[in-house]
Parts: sequence; structure tokens; C-alpha cells
Amino acid sequence: MGMDGRDTPENAAATPSGATIEAWLDGLRGRLADDVRGAVADYIPELSRADADGLAICIATVDGQVYGVGDQAEPFTIQSVSKPFMYGYALREYGVDFTLGHVGVEPTGEAFNSIILDDVHNRPFNPMVNAGAIAVAELMKGATMAQRERNMRELFSQFAGRELSIDDSVYRSEHATGHRNRAIAYMMLNSGMIRRDPEDVLDLYFKQCAVSVTCRDLAVMAATLANDGANPLTGDKVLDPLAVRDVLTLMHSCGMYNYAGQWAYEVGVPAKSGVSGGVIAVIPGQLGIGVWSPRLDAHGNSVRGVEACKAVSSAFGLHVFNARPNVRAVIRREYRADKVASKRLRTPRERDLLAARGARVAVIEVQGELYFGSVERLLRRAAALAGETDRLILDFKRAQSADAAAIGLMRHMTEASTPGDASLILSHLTAEGPLAGLHAAMSEVSEALGTSRLALIEDADAALELSEDALLAAAPELRHGAKYALKELDLFQGLSEDDCRELEQIVQPMQFAAGETILRRGDPARALFVIARGSASVTVPREDGRVRRLACLGPGLSVGEMALLDGGARSADVVADEPVVAYALGVDRLRDLARTRPGILIAILENLSRELSSRLRLASDEIRALE
Amino acid sequence: MGMDGRDTPENAAATPSGATIEAWLDGLRGRLADDVRGAVADYIPELSRADADGLAICIATVDGQVYGVGDQAEPFTIQSVSKPFMYGYALREYGVDFTLGHVGVEPTGEAFNSIILDDVHNRPFNPMVNAGAIAVAELMKGATMAQRERNMRELFSQFAGRELSIDDSVYRSEHATGHRNRAIAYMMLNSGMIRRDPEDVLDLYFKQCAVSVTCRDLAVMAATLANDGANPLTGDKVLDPLAVRDVLTLMHSCGMYNYAGQWAYEVGVPAKSGVSGGVIAVIPGQLGIGVWSPRLDAHGNSVRGVEACKAVSSAFGLHVFNARPNVRAVIRREYRADKVASKRLRTPRERDLLAARGARVAVIEVQGELYFGSVERLLRRAAALAGETDRLILDFKRAQSADAAAIGLMRHMTEASTPGDASLILSHLTAEGPLAGLHAAMSEVSEALGTSRLALIEDADAALELSEDALLAAAPELRHGAKYALKELDLFQGLSEDDCRELEQIVQPMQFAAGETILRRGDPARALFVIARGSASVTVPREDGRVRRLACLGPGLSVGEMALLDGGARSADVVADEPVVAYALGVDRLRDLARTRPGILIAILENLSRELSSRLRLASDEIRALE
Repeated sequence: MGMDGRDTPENAAATPSGATIEAWLDGLRGRLADDVRGAVADYIPELSRADADGLAICIATVDGQVYGVGDQAEPFTIQSVSKPFMYGYALREYGVDFTLGHVGVEPTGEAFNSIILDDVHNRPFNPMVNAGAIAVAELMKGATMAQRERNMRELFSQFAGRELSIDDSVYRSEHATGHRNRAIAYMMLNSGMIRRDPEDVLDLYFKQCAVSVTCRDLAVMAATLANDGANPLTGDKVLDPLAVRDVLTLMHSCGMYNYAGQWAYEVGVPAKSGVSGGVIAVIPGQLGIGVWSPRLDAHGNSVRGVEACKAVSSAFGLHVFNARPNVRAVIRREYRADKVASKRLRTPRERDLLAARGARVAVIEVQGELYFGSVERLLRRAAALAGETDRLILDFKRAQSADAAAIGLMRHMTEASTPGDASLILSHLTAEGPLAGLHAAMSEVSEALGTSRLALIEDADAALELSEDALLAAAPELRHGAKYALKELDLFQGLSEDDCRELEQIVQPMQFAAGETILRRGDPARALFVIARGSASVTVPREDGRVRRLACLGPGLSVGEMALLDGGARSADVVADEPVVAYALGVDRLRDLARTRPGILIAILENLSRELSSRLRLASDEIRALE
Repeated sequence: MGMDGRDTPENAAATPSGATIEAWLDGLRGRLADDVRGAVADYIPELSRADADGLAICIATVDGQVYGVGDQAEPFTIQSVSKPFMYGYALREYGVDFTLGHVGVEPTGEAFNSIILDDVHNRPFNPMVNAGAIAVAELMKGATMAQRERNMRELFSQFAGRELSIDDSVYRSEHATGHRNRAIAYMMLNSGMIRRDPEDVLDLYFKQCAVSVTCRDLAVMAATLANDGANPLTGDKVLDPLAVRDVLTLMHSCGMYNYAGQWAYEVGVPAKSGVSGGVIAVIPGQLGIGVWSPRLDAHGNSVRGVEACKAVSSAFGLHVFNARPNVRAVIRREYRADKVASKRLRTPRERDLLAARGARVAVIEVQGELYFGSVERLLRRAAALAGETDRLILDFKRAQSADAAAIGLMRHMTEASTPGDASLILSHLTAEGPLAGLHAAMSEVSEALGTSRLALIEDADAALELSEDALLAAAPELRHGAKYALKELDLFQGLSEDDCRELEQIVQPMQFAAGETILRRGDPARALFVIARGSASVTVPREDGRVRRLACLGPGLSVGEMALLDGGARSADVVADEPVVAYALGVDRLRDLARTRPGILIAILENLSRELSSRLRLASDEIRALE
């Protein structure tokens, strides 16, 4: 499996890391169990019936691993933890500007159920206090109450990755006794902050607060925010990253009510608490945390929920201003064409030439997320290399994303290049997937500048081969595409005129059309071939049924030489890429000849050993260069 | 140069990325030049003399690259931008708890010069408003005013990476007219929030505000915070990362006065503004931004400074809740010992055995920063591999840091391992440098569990060789360390009894002591050697004068076989690692023999080709596995 897979999502405890994290969480649970400060909310009877000693702590990673301890499956109503998700919905459906018209973004020193409103802007201060959440609840779409409720339930179900329902008795109880919220709603109607019937808006608000969740649900919902709005279990894209950013900002500044400043300082993670004892915390790019414990402190936050988040944040180093993007990792490795070759096999003279001049071609393997800091560093390195090279290949095979800043920087940099600069080749930039935006921008630039200055090539190996070809084409001392006479071939060097004449008797010139098979995998190996003109590929079938190209051969190169040594079966297919002329040399006939003229076989074996030895040395260099 | 070097710190504009970023900044400067809203502060005459149209924008990266446009070198007084640095000083010198006794961490909706104090905790609300900054100024150490001033100037000079001085006329003017600050200080003295003579405290406060800086200085100071407290130009560690974290938290929530909520939402970066028109913004792990433009808005923030930060944050995607650590990149690559071999060369039988069973040894190359999210993923992958392997090598060569959470997780995971688990080898964990903490923890665990379960080995290649040795040692069919008779050696397979007797005549057995040179680089190649017993290393000198080990040879392997082919000079040194017995075969004598018995040379060349071919195939597999 790949590095990005989910190893054992179903049974975290079975893995050492799972056991480690859950053991740690369990230790934390044990310590917190002794903390009986605070009191269960009792403003409605249904909430006061919660198990005051209940406690669960869950962590969900952005790739769907869930760790949990305690009463993970115990249901409770989500209450105010619903607020950030509803705010995300408003941003998704209406955009920032419209939403800002209905609710502000300023923290307030007031309690969560404060009736004080922002008179200057005529809106509640922020969506994390009740007044703001009621304003947001008005924005739920749907022609009827039933439709709005369905839409709301669907939203929460998408965040949780399972179908959630409403706790009817809690809803009814809040509906019957929510006088303060009713007062807030009517105040807002009075000043025009809401427009619809307050009873109607409150009805949805009470239902949203009464959505029944478990602690595990909270962790997954938080992990959906941590994962840029995509549910890590289902892959559902619930919010776009920009909306997530705004939600997290408000959770960070207002999520813990009038405890927010201290929280940002000590715990330092975007969070939201609710009166039923739930707390979520979000570590962007890493994980979501859910805690449930019903006893509340004076601010209305779960006592143990706050303590659990403090401990997890501290032990795991999760404070938002701890998070350091690793700009250095954008360059996975770098190499030059004098040390690392494409899959095209070259003649000894070509190899010598590439070893001498290949440093003029550089490859940078790019990896990870492309954003301002990482692209700035990449382009700085590319610029340094541009002075030393003729061609620079940026291989995006392992790049995972490119944000607008990355695309803009790449665009500006390539547009600003001059004809004298190294020509730039971008490989593995695909028109679909996470790099589609970068692909589109670079295609445009390439069209404007011409492919000689900026080219997009699917595959890094093809880009390298092309760059090698360009280096070789510039070398007048090489004969390009020429047909080789037998005695000019490296394999037959050192033979006397006499030997050559003898050899010619047993050598058979052959022609192959493009696409024709020269050697077939599994066939008995009875002859070796030397290519005199054209090009052929050595391939083996891959597990997925497609074909893997191992090497590519041109004039002067031999193939199937193992026939000389053990005469077993062919280990790969060799197929003509274009019309090929080759010399076939039957091994049996060569051995017959060697009985009278051993010097021929000795010379051929020496040449073969020399060739293999030279290729082995190159391969060893390449292995070192790839480390 | 390495990937982490500074390519062209002295001349950013000369690089395409530099030109791109500065061109973009210059475009921004042009657009902002038209914005003449706001007014220059005029509460003291010296500030009102500032060039109202002045504008500079600078960006400094965490590795010391500085981009800048506009009036970058224009000096101005730092004013309130000094506050976060002084707060960092207090945290560094006194710790969090003591500092919290003097100043709080709660945002306030009040203006920067508000006289309202936190009566509940008897302290100013936070260190970013004047009252809080005065409380912090009292904490500057030094027995005399002159000493405190020197310490203060030294602090700011460390942040800027150059010697800063105080603008005396601004200081005098503020000292003469700072009545409101004087009122605040006396209020604080009255309630015991400061203890020393207010005039004395204010004197340092006015001097701190009058430190003269340029926009470039501000960018470097901000980059020092972005770089975990280490100045990117000088390398000076000015603050520890924990203090930086607390400073950034307060800049984020309080740095832009009563505009903070909107700022966190729209711009989303920790920032601080000053009344002289300076603004800094910090993008942790990426860069620091400095802007200077003297016209202020109603909140006291530079109009163009705010706009510039908005534009940079938006264009470059710098909002704090955009920043996503890339947990996936922790695994650079993974391979198994059946595909990638150590530098020890093996006999064909050993190679076959490693190809068949090498998958029981896995290597994970770790890279980048180790923190909760990345280590959780690493350990999850390690756990998945542990089930399929006998030995698991974690190579930390490219790991850059490990925080407490990473160390804790690694410790728990290894301690929780059972004797039945794959044995774990950690390589490149050094006792010094950024991984020292992890090294210490793992050494402890290794001592407790025994090295058979957890071993620390300096080098990944040595770890791989050891693991291969263990696989081979478990194979009874191999003869370990045995002395080989001539006819048992692979190079001489296929020779008749007769041929062998002939060959024995010209082969010369030789003994070498440990450390003795068998072949010397540059010497003429006249013989090949086959090792019968012992072990030897093939080495070449490195550029730095040390020695690079290319390969390691044991019984049954030949070295110097190129002598057979071209008789040039030796390309490497071969040195006995331990006492070695080898057969030397002079090439001239072999060729003499071939005149009467060509079959001997043909067989040797065939065996040599077969060996080279087999090693080439392995090398090609390895290259694919390393991609």
C-alpha cells in the first residue's frame, strides 16, 4: 500500500501507534475522572439528566484514523458545538460578504447568552454567541420548515459521516423553556437583524442544538474541518477551504466565549464548546478532537473538556503557533543528467558525452504542498540552477497541491524568463486532479513563450531523454541515426579484418517494422541482436496489465546478449519503436566458429564485459545520485 | 550547494523568483501610492514631520532572503511595534507565570491608549496596549537606567541583526509630551500594577518606542519571530520557540488594537502596528513582513500598512488557518532489502537468498519535522510493516527536528513493543543537533529493551548490511566465512579438471593483514583478485579528504577484473577490513595460457559477464526501487 493509505482504520488499538495514543488518552481519562468541579447544565430537565461522571475523548486524523477512550458511543445533544458548522453552511451558501451583513466577527467579552448586540453595524457580534447563531439559523435554505430541518440534518450528517437524528425530548424542552433565546430573537427582529418570524427561526435553532451526536462524531466533524472541509471517512467535500478558514478563525477568537483570550494563549487551537459538555478542537492538516463531559465551569465550558484539550494540545504540541510548514521539504531531491540517465540506453561514446556535458541538464523533484513559502524556495533554487544549466526539469510527480499563490508565482517567474535562460520543462503536471490549476496556467505560458522555453511533458523520464537527445544532437562528432557497419560496432571491436570476414558469414541482417516484436519474453535465447538503425524498447508487463519500459535502445547497442552466457529464456520483450535494422548473431554458430577461431569469441566477450562493467559503474553512480 | 543554503541573499532581484516577488511588490506599491486616506500622527511634532507619502514593503524569509520595494532604507521610530519584542523579552527572562502576574492576555475592545485596566486580575489587559507595554517595560533588567537602556537596545539589535540606535529628538519629544502615558503609569502605580518610579519606567518605554529602524529591519525582526526566534541573518537565538508562540498569540488577538477581530478574519496573520506607520506581520515557518507608511486610520493603524498586509496575505495565501502541515511528507520513501542492497557485495548465492527473503527487511526514510501528526503517520506505517517484516530500519538522516510530542510518541511506541515484533533499528539519530532529544530517549529505551529489539546504528547502510547478514546467517545452506578452493569460485565455474590444474599453475595465493592495501588507485591493472577468506572494502577519496566506501567484498567475490579487459589503471583502492586470503591471477599469464587453452579464458569471461550482468540487473531494480 502507498504512504497515503489508511493502514488500519477499523482497529486503531491493534497497532503500536494506536495502542500508544489510546493508552495515553486512557491515562488522561483516568486523571480527569477525579476532577468533579463544575455542574451539569440544568436550565432544562433533559440536560440535567446527563451522567455527570460521563467522559469520552476521541481524536480523528485527517486520513480517517479514529482513536478514542471512555464513553465514546454515549449520545448527547450537540448544543452550541453546532454553531461553527452552521456558520460554515452560511459561508458556503451565501459567501462572506452577505454573511457579514448578518453577523460580525468581533470577539465579545460577554457571556454566550448575552443580549448585547453590535449597534454600530446592526448585527450580532459573532456567530459563536447565541444571538449570532440565531441570525445564522435564519439563513438555512428550504421553502418549508420541514425542508429546512432536512437540510440542516443533512449538513450535520455530512460532517459526521453518518446519519444523525434530533433528540426530540431535548428539542421540545428547549422549545418550551428557551425564553432568553426568544428574547434575543425578538430584540433582533426589533432592530431588523433577523427578518423572518422569530418562532420559525428559533425552531430551527433549537433543533440544530438538539442534534444527537457521540464523542466520536464530534472528533470526525472536527477532523472534517482539519481536513479542509472534506470528511476523512467518506471523502465528502462539505465545505470549501476558504469557508473552513473563516470558521476556524472565529472558533479561535470566539469559540470558548469569554475564556477565548486565555484559551488562545494556553491551548491555542480553534475550538467550540457546548452546554451539554461537548468540546471540539481542530488542528488544521492534522486532526480533530472531540471531548464530552457534562460538568460546566462558570463560562459554560466543560470543565474536563477544557482540561482534556489543554493536556492534548500540550502533550502533542498542537498550539496553532507551533505549526510550522516545512518549506525545505519542497525539494525532494536534485540530480543532473551526467549522473542519472533516462531509460534510453546509449552507446559508449554517447555515454561519455553525457557524462561530460550532462551537468547542463538538472532535474528537481518537487514534493508536497505548493504555497508561497515552498514555491519561493523552489524558484530560488531553480534560479540558482538556471545559471549553471541549459535545461531544467521540474518534476511535479509528488506535488500534492498548488494554491493560488503558488500558481501566481510560477506564472510570474516563467513569464519573466528571457530567451537566454535555461529552458524549463515541467513534468507530471496533469490537466486533472489537484494540480489542474497549475497545469492550466503553465500551458498558457508555454503557448505564449513557445515550448523551446517552457514545455510540459507528461513524464520525467521522457523529459530527461529529450534533454539528453538535445545535448547529443549538439555534438557534431556523433553520427546520428546512421547505419553501422559490423566492424564499427562496439561489440565487435578488436577483431582482425580476417575475423570480421568470418563473422560476416554467420551474421544475419534483419528488418523490423514499427511495433514489431524483436525478442519475446519466455522464448528460448538463441541469438543476440545489434541494432544498426532505428530504436527499440525493452519492456516487461506490469502487475496492473500495463507495460513497464525498462530501457530504450538505439543504433550501436546490443540486446539479448545473455543468450551468449546461459541460453535460457528471454526475460523481457523487445519491440521496435520505429523501423529497425539489426544484426542477428546465432549463438550456436558463434560457438562453432570459436572452435577454429577462439579469438572472435574472446573479443566479443571482452567487449561485452567492458560494456556491462561500464553500465554497472553508471548504475552505481546513479544509485548514489538518487540517495 | 545544499537545498537549505542561501542561494543569493545579497541580490534577490537578480533571480527570477526575486524579480517576480519584487515586481509583484512593486505593483502593489504603485497601487497603494494612490491611497492617501488617513493622517500622519501629530501628537508630537517629530512624528508629524514624517513623509506622508513614504511607503516601503519588505519580506524576509526564514532563511534570510529579503525582498523589498519603496523607501526601504528610510529610518523611522519603531513605536508600538516594539511591544511584542519587549513582551518576548519578559517571557524569556521571567517565564510565563511571572509575566502573567504583570500583564494579561485578553483582547480588549478599547483603543491602544485606553486607561481602562483589568481590575479583577489587577493588571493591564494585554501587552499590546500602552498600559500593558508600560508594565512590561518595568521588567527590563539592569541596575541602572543606562544599563536597562543598553539591554533594551541590545534586544532590538539582536532582532534586527544590526546595531540599532535611539532617535533622540523623538524620545525627548515623547518624554516631554507623553501625558496620557504618564497618567496610565500613575494609575498603575496607584493600584500596584507597577512598583518602580513611573518616570523611570516611562523613560525606558519612551526610549523603546524611539528605537530607529527601517522597513527592512522590521521585516527581519518579524522573520526572526517566523523563524522560531532565531535571527535568519545572524543565526542568533533571540527567543525560544515557546516564547515566540505566546508572542504570536497576542499579536494575533491584540496586535491591531480594536481592529483585531476583523484583522484575524480578513488578514489572518499575527501582526503589530505602530503610530509612526510601521506594521509587522509574521507567517510562522515562512516569512516576516514589514511595511511602513505614516498615514494612520481611526484605529491608529497605518492605512497602507493594513492594505499591504491584506494584499500580501491574500495573494500569497498566508492566512494562519491556510497553513497546513504536510503530514504525508514524513515518509520520504520506503524500500525492502530484496530490491535495495547495502554496499556489501554478495556472492550469487547470497544475492539469490537476499532476493528471495530480503522483503523481510524494510527501510523507511523519514524526513522533515517530527511532530504529533507526522509521527502518528510514521508509526502507523511502521506498525503496518512490522507485521510483514523481521527488521524495520527507520532512517532519520533527513529528519530536521523532533518536538516533545514526537519524542513521547516514539518512546511509548517502542516501549510498548513486544519481543515478537519486528526488531527496530534507528539510523542517523545523532547525540548532537536537533535530534539530540530523540536520540537520548531512544538510547534509554534501547538500553532497557536490549539492542536485539531496538538498536541505534549510525548509518542506514550499516543497518541494512547488518540486517542482510542476519538473514544470511539464518540460511544453513550458505558456508559462512569459509575458505574457497579455486574450482569452487564462481569465476572459474565450467572449467574442466584439466583446465583447473593449468590455471592453478598461474594463480598465486596471497595474504593481507587487516588495513593492508590490496589494490591501489592509479596503479597499473595487471591482475585480478578473488577473495577466498576475509572481507575488503572498495573506497575512493572524497572531495573533503575523507574516504567514500563504494562496496564491500567477501569470500567468493572478485575484484580488479577490469585488468582482464583494458589493463588501464586501478580506479579505486581496495583495503583489507580483516585478514584476507585472495587468489591473484596475472592477466599476462592468463593470456599466454589462452593461446593454447582458449577455453579457460572464454569460460572466465563468460562467468565475468554473467556476474556483471546479474549485478547490473540488481542495480536497475534498485534504481527503480529508489525512485
